[in-house]
Amino acid sequence: MHSPVPAVGGRSHGCKQRFETERGGPAIACSLIPISRLLGSESETDQAAHCTDVEERGPRRHPGCWKMLTVAMCVALLGCLQAQELRGHVSVILLGATGDLARKYLWRGLFQLYLDEAGKDYSFSFHGAALTSTKQGQAFIAKVLESLSCPEDVAPDRCSELKGQFQRLSAYRHLATREDYMALSKDIEAQVQRGGLREAGRIFYFSVPPFAYADIARNINSSCRPGPGAWLRVVLEKPFGHDHLSAQQLATELGGFFREEEMYRVDHYLGKQAVAQILPFRDQNRKALDGLWSRHHVERVEIIMKETVDAEGRTSFYEEYGVIRDVLQNHLTEVLTLVAMELPHNISSSESVLQHKLRAFRALRGLQKGSAVLGQYQAYSEQVRREQQKPDSFHSLTPTFAGVLVHMDNLRWEGVPFILMSGKALDERVGYARILFRNQAYCVQNDEHWVADQSRCLPRQIVFYIGHGELGSPAVLVSRNLFRPSLPPESWKELGARPGLRLFGRPLSDFYAYSPVREQDAYSVLISHIFHGRKDSFVTTENLLASWGFWTPLLDGLAHEVPRLYPGGAENGHLLDFEFGGARLCFSQQQPEQLVPGPGPAPMPSGFQVLKARYRESPLISAWPEELIAKLADDIEATAVRAVRRFGAFHLALSGGSSPVPLFQQLATRHYGFPWAHTHLWLVDERCVPLWDPESNFQHLQTHLLQHIRVPYYNIHPMPVHLRQRLCAEEDQGAQTYASEISALVANSSFDLVLLGMGADGHTASLFPQSPSGLDGEQLVVLTESPSRPFQRMSLSLPLINRARKVAVLVMGRVKREITVLVSRVGHEPKKWPISGVLPTSGQLVWYMDYEAFLG
Amino acid sequence: MHSPVPAVGGRSHGCKQRFETERGGPAIACSLIPISRLLGSESETDQAAHCTDVEERGPRRHPGCWKMLTVAMCVALLGCLQAQELRGHVSVILLGATGDLARKYLWRGLFQLYLDEAGKDYSFSFHGAALTSTKQGQAFIAKVLESLSCPEDVAPDRCSELKGQFQRLSAYRHLATREDYMALSKDIEAQVQRGGLREAGRIFYFSVPPFAYADIARNINSSCRPGPGAWLRVVLEKPFGHDHLSAQQLATELGGFFREEEMYRVDHYLGKQAVAQILPFRDQNRKALDGLWSRHHVERVEIIMKETVDAEGRTSFYEEYGVIRDVLQNHLTEVLTLVAMELPHNISSSESVLQHKLRAFRALRGLQKGSAVLGQYQAYSEQVRREQQKPDSFHSLTPTFAGVLVHMDNLRWEGVPFILMSGKALDERVGYARILFRNQAYCVQNDEHWVADQSRCLPRQIVFYIGHGELGSPAVLVSRNLFRPSLPPESWKELGARPGLRLFGRPLSDFYAYSPVREQDAYSVLISHIFHGRKDSFVTTENLLASWGFWTPLLDGLAHEVPRLYPGGAENGHLLDFEFGGARLCFSQQQPEQLVPGPGPAPMPSGFQVLKARYRESPLISAWPEELIAKLADDIEATAVRAVRRFGAFHLALSGGSSPVPLFQQLATRHYGFPWAHTHLWLVDERCVPLWDPESNFQHLQTHLLQHIRVPYYNIHPMPVHLRQRLCAEEDQGAQTYASEISALVANSSFDLVLLGMGADGHTASLFPQSPSGLDGEQLVVLTESPSRPFQRMSLSLPLINRARKVAVLVMGRVKREITVLVSRVGHEPKKWPISGVLPTSGQLVWYMDYEAFLG
Repeated sequence: MHSPVPAVGGRSHGCKQRFETERGGPAIACSLIPISRLLGSESETDQAAHCTDVEERGPRRHPGCWKMLTVAMCVALLGCLQAQELRGHVSVILLGATGDLARKYLWRGLFQLYLDEAGKDYSFSFHGAALTSTKQGQAFIAKVLESLSCPEDVAPDRCSELKGQFQRLSAYRHLATREDYMALSKDIEAQVQRGGLREAGRIFYFSVPPFAYADIARNINSSCRPGPGAWLRVVLEKPFGHDHLSAQQLATELGGFFREEEMYRVDHYLGKQAVAQILPFRDQNRKALDGLWSRHHVERVEIIMKETVDAEGRTSFYEEYGVIRDVLQNHLTEVLTLVAMELPHNISSSESVLQHKLRAFRALRGLQKGSAVLGQYQAYSEQVRREQQKPDSFHSLTPTFAGVLVHMDNLRWEGVPFILMSGKALDERVGYARILFRNQAYCVQNDEHWVADQSRCLPRQIVFYIGHGELGSPAVLVSRNLFRPSLPPESWKELGARPGLRLFGRPLSDFYAYSPVREQDAYSVLISHIFHGRKDSFVTTENLLASWGFWTPLLDGLAHEVPRLYPGGAENGHLLDFEFGGARLCFSQQQPEQLVPGPGPAPMPSGFQVLKARYRESPLISAWPEELIAKLADDIEATAVRAVRRFGAFHLALSGGSSPVPLFQQLATRHYGFPWAHTHLWLVDERCVPLWDPESNFQHLQTHLLQHIRVPYYNIHPMPVHLRQRLCAEEDQGAQTYASEISALVANSSFDLVLLGMGADGHTASLFPQSPSGLDGEQLVVLTESPSRPFQRMSLSLPLINRARKVAVLVMGRVKREITVLVSRVGHEPKKWPISGVLPTSGQLVWYMDYEAFLG
Repeated sequence: MHSPVPAVGGRSHGCKQRFETERGGPAIACSLIPISRLLGSESETDQAAHCTDVEERGPRRHPGCWKMLTVAMCVALLGCLQAQELRGHVSVILLGATGDLARKYLWRGLFQLYLDEAGKDYSFSFHGAALTSTKQGQAFIAKVLESLSCPEDVAPDRCSELKGQFQRLSAYRHLATREDYMALSKDIEAQVQRGGLREAGRIFYFSVPPFAYADIARNINSSCRPGPGAWLRVVLEKPFGHDHLSAQQLATELGGFFREEEMYRVDHYLGKQAVAQILPFRDQNRKALDGLWSRHHVERVEIIMKETVDAEGRTSFYEEYGVIRDVLQNHLTEVLTLVAMELPHNISSSESVLQHKLRAFRALRGLQKGSAVLGQYQAYSEQVRREQQKPDSFHSLTPTFAGVLVHMDNLRWEGVPFILMSGKALDERVGYARILFRNQAYCVQNDEHWVADQSRCLPRQIVFYIGHGELGSPAVLVSRNLFRPSLPPESWKELGARPGLRLFGRPLSDFYAYSPVREQDAYSVLISHIFHGRKDSFVTTENLLASWGFWTPLLDGLAHEVPRLYPGGAENGHLLDFEFGGARLCFSQQQPEQLVPGPGPAPMPSGFQVLKARYRESPLISAWPEELIAKLADDIEATAVRAVRRFGAFHLALSGGSSPVPLFQQLATRHYGFPWAHTHLWLVDERCVPLWDPESNFQHLQTHLLQHIRVPYYNIHPMPVHLRQRLCAEEDQGAQTYASEISALVANSSFDLVLLGMGADGHTASLFPQSPSGLDGEQLVVLTESPSRPFQRMSLSLPLINRARKVAVLVMGRVKREITVLVSRVGHEPKKWPISGVLPTSGQLVWYMDYEAFLG
């Protein structure tokens, strides 16, 4: 046994020279110690047993392997440096080392890490951990390690040598109980001590199902943390919860064991080379992009992941998640934020990048049921039935295809559609983020003569081509009529000609096209980033919760939606094409006849059913809340259009309170045809607080409506409750001022539409029972007193309200049930129930009540 | 001589039968009278002389023609009806009958009219009039008439018979003096009387230069009007003036002679079949178009007329007009209104159509210099020099190419670019109006599999193809992924396959494509419309003036603009391509090196240089306008960010006038990071007009800045110039109110930044020389008087301005040169030059001057 433990590669003069020689061919001389000794855990018997096991399972690649192992296993921390010249020792513990992900990607990633870092600053040991028996685990790992192939850019000799070292540095470990973790920790400490090393840190890679997280986390935290001065990094794989609540719970739980900076949540898309290039590309081409990267130039952004495979064999997982949770909430959302976020001045500051990303999340406009279309490939339900022993009557509602329309409410992106789409069993496998620019040119020559790098009328696009598809590799594509991009030449090279290849409707030659010099697997990239502590390639708790906060309402809204069935593959034809009008998405083609006896629950009464009846001898419209609001908004728009056509203006008086908020939102985001430029907005009532007070009715209007539309400033008429820096002082004559403004601007003081609510005490506007003013008389606008804070109010009077051409009363929620019943029975008693005094002299009164208010 | 005169064709039972037989072959039996007798003017001698003349000029097609004429000339009002069964007689007087237009189109149009109407309700006579001698005129006309060919859709026998009749009904007439007109009138009356006919009306077709209009009009009005009960229609050919003023004068002059309903101003584009089909198409496809024909769906509209010919041989005309007056002001604008106007319920009501068209004109947003790009083919100046004996030093500024970006300010079209383009010496001859719809779909299949009639992602367009181009005939094209249009099958038929033909980037097979069953010349269509009184195919005085009102400011603005030179034909390449950002157009490519020693100004120093110097002992920043504005905007943003960081708010006071407009635009469209939510906007000065008045400074702010950003309502502080529906009434204390608002909200009444301008008289804000208030004293806000309208102003006072942390003075344009020099030399003399009183007490003063203002 040798001591001090020689390190991986080295920096001393002699060693460097030696390495240089080595690259030429000769084997590295290194000091060997059996890893079993280093780790101090596994018995030779175990190893031998394992060895047999391997033989049973398949051809034995290394005859006498264990002998070789015990003999040849070297510290592999090989090299010839003195320990004090190393920055320290890093232990990587791969939890779930025998799982699928580990087998396919993670061992390869660790090997790549070793290839990259061997001979630099750290020594390593790799612990493949699982619940599998030691024997089986060892065999599994030996096989996986043996199967690792060498990347093209490493010389074969050097690689096979490093591979041997990597194999020797890696060992299986059964890790289940707290004691196991304690033992592991002790072994690592002993190993470090024995080697005369300093411990740099420990990486725990959780490649295990989420239900196992808590136990493992507890064990690591209590029994396997490195000592002071060394870091702990735990790497977590999705799913990170199922919705906002579960993600929050999981985050809270993990937060009990680990500090935020210790957690590395993997979204492997962030390791895809084209995705990882988005921010550097934006940074290195700042000048060219500055005038392009905004709503003024971008027509749309498409963020797409198409798969040809289906979910067969994985339905037990898939049935729980579906495509939105599986792909959109994480991968596509991460790409979206990289495209949309404001670019930090310094993109190499993880903190800054993460902060900007978080701000992008905050700018996402909330999704509604209508923001998505869902599909399910036809064979899916049958696969679920088969794999999960479900009865023949079972039909799944889990979507395997989704298209979602995302908007951002900020100055840069307002109005630009971000289209997110993913699905299984589609016609091709491909992933990309495509920024399509608006054509703002007219090209005078006949289009036959347009030249790719000169014509501004040919499509202008930037594509981060994540992989697969017709190109077959990651790429960054920039239309030649945009600009010649700058990419780091050491890692991205120009793609050679591929005659006949067309991408996004244009020949490849229309693009400046770059692909990575060395194609790298996403996990290899991420493992390297974990090792280097580049946190911006990972999902922080804040970002995770922001993402779930964004997606959960949509997921809830769609929970009972029946997805459109599609046959799969090329047969899908145009069946899944979708289009948007305003903020709504819908399939372009009508639902064809059901392809198989359909899934889905018994047909519901149509969601759009609206009940028409009468209430207090006036028309009543009743529906579920969403439909009621939609109907009211439609009616208001129709009234507005008519008024503008007839009179050139539309005078709308709006009430405060919370009920109208969804209405404001509806109007703000769905009614693009609303004649806002000709609409005057008045307040029905106001609280005597400054306009910017959160309690102010105007403030609601500002936040939920005015923010989003274009009403000329002078068409907005807040109540003057705050004159001369005082609130509703009689002597400031605010009410009279408002009345005279109304008289001056509104013909005959007759609003085109007044929107009212109804309080549980029968009040409406700010006219409360027994109000000494406003219920009758000449005054158009009055100061009143509310029974609740803030007491002072300003309100339109009943006589003024009753001059309107149309009055709509919006009543929502179960809490209104009682007053609804009561008011339906009383006569004209405004002193007791001011709402009963609403009766337009010559206009129309319509009641809008949701089912809860109306039917209880 | 026969009496009553038999009429053309007829409706009586017997005659109808006879016509039916005739179409089978046999000649029409008709009563003949010599037209010379009918008209009672020309001597046989004259005719004989003419006859000789023809012989001299070319081959004589009809040997013994004059004999035949005198013998065979029949009333041609042929047929066999009794006169009382006719609706009357129509005389067509073609003025300028020997001109180019008449030769090429008008005689053909009249013949077509005769072919269409012969045998219906009216009898005709056609008088070719000119100043030419009778002999020459007769010969010319005989030749033209003889050369008329028969359209394909009329049986040859019938046609040649009708042609013979038409020839006999047509005669030349020398028409110069008032006496000539009186004689013509008498002749017509005599003819009608002799025929026992009722006069239905007279059509005077002015195919003469505009300078001749007035005389002719006077003569017609005074001496050649038909008697009571018969109509007069005068047909006028463009140019209708040169700008708004001259058009107005011409219109007023003509209005002294003719009533509006008597005038038919021809824009022959309105007779082009595809143009004439626009409204009927919109009408017959109302349902399909209803959801498409608006800004929500239309991406752009292109209205294009490309010519391959140049102006050689016509430069004396062209040099006066140029492409905008020649094509855009009339043809393209007419097409624009047909596309953009609201569709009347009844499109067969001329009045209703014309009213709606006029409303479309009113919605056009005013053009500015930046709305157009101009070009001139390289050989043009040389052609002008040659044809007009100009010296070698002469360079014309007349544009032969123009692209113009038009916007409409109404709910339907707001934001949709209408691109108008026309030019000579281009690569192809083609005309079209193309409506391109937005792609609001995502198509899931790889684009190779998209199917024309199913994929919503392929371009969706409707094209009114006016003619020529690759299609070679008029057409209406509708993308198959839009809808199958309905067109009247009697006049439009589906186009057959044309493999290989691509139009607008797509194979012809992607369109539902229709072409006219019978291709008709525009003049034939219009002559028919004149005869039928379809006024909506003509340009009314109101529409004409509206159009000139729209174009004149642009023409004025461009009067001294140097057009870009282009080589002509295919060589133009991408040189003339243009693009728009906001409301501005510019060529896509930088001005290449001058192709010939150009007109144009001397080359400018690099555009991006910013000069730093001192002015009045304060920092001065000088640059070309665009860079200056960019720099100022950057500085304002930096100041804003600092202020918000330090104090939580940024108080910015902005000046009115036109100079800050580009600054507002810059801030609105480039500064996404501006902390608007924390910015308070104040006005430096205001005109005493309502806030929504176009003169209001606030209105500029609203249009160019507030429209585009998100400042909370209560952070916007317009000056209270309009209280209690009065303007700047002392007793309303607006100035005091504003002052107290400032005191309340702005710490220490010290704005973070005040933006000022400088007038040519040295005024700043609305503080004019010798102002009795505002230059010193305690008042923060004052009412002042301007030397120019509107006189009353409100302004921050100098003492308040000087409390600011930073004052920026923006001075732009050559007109400021003098005052800039002057002010650089004066001391502190605010009474004489208020700007000299700007000197922040403890803040910073920075001057921003463009090179023209600073360097002259």
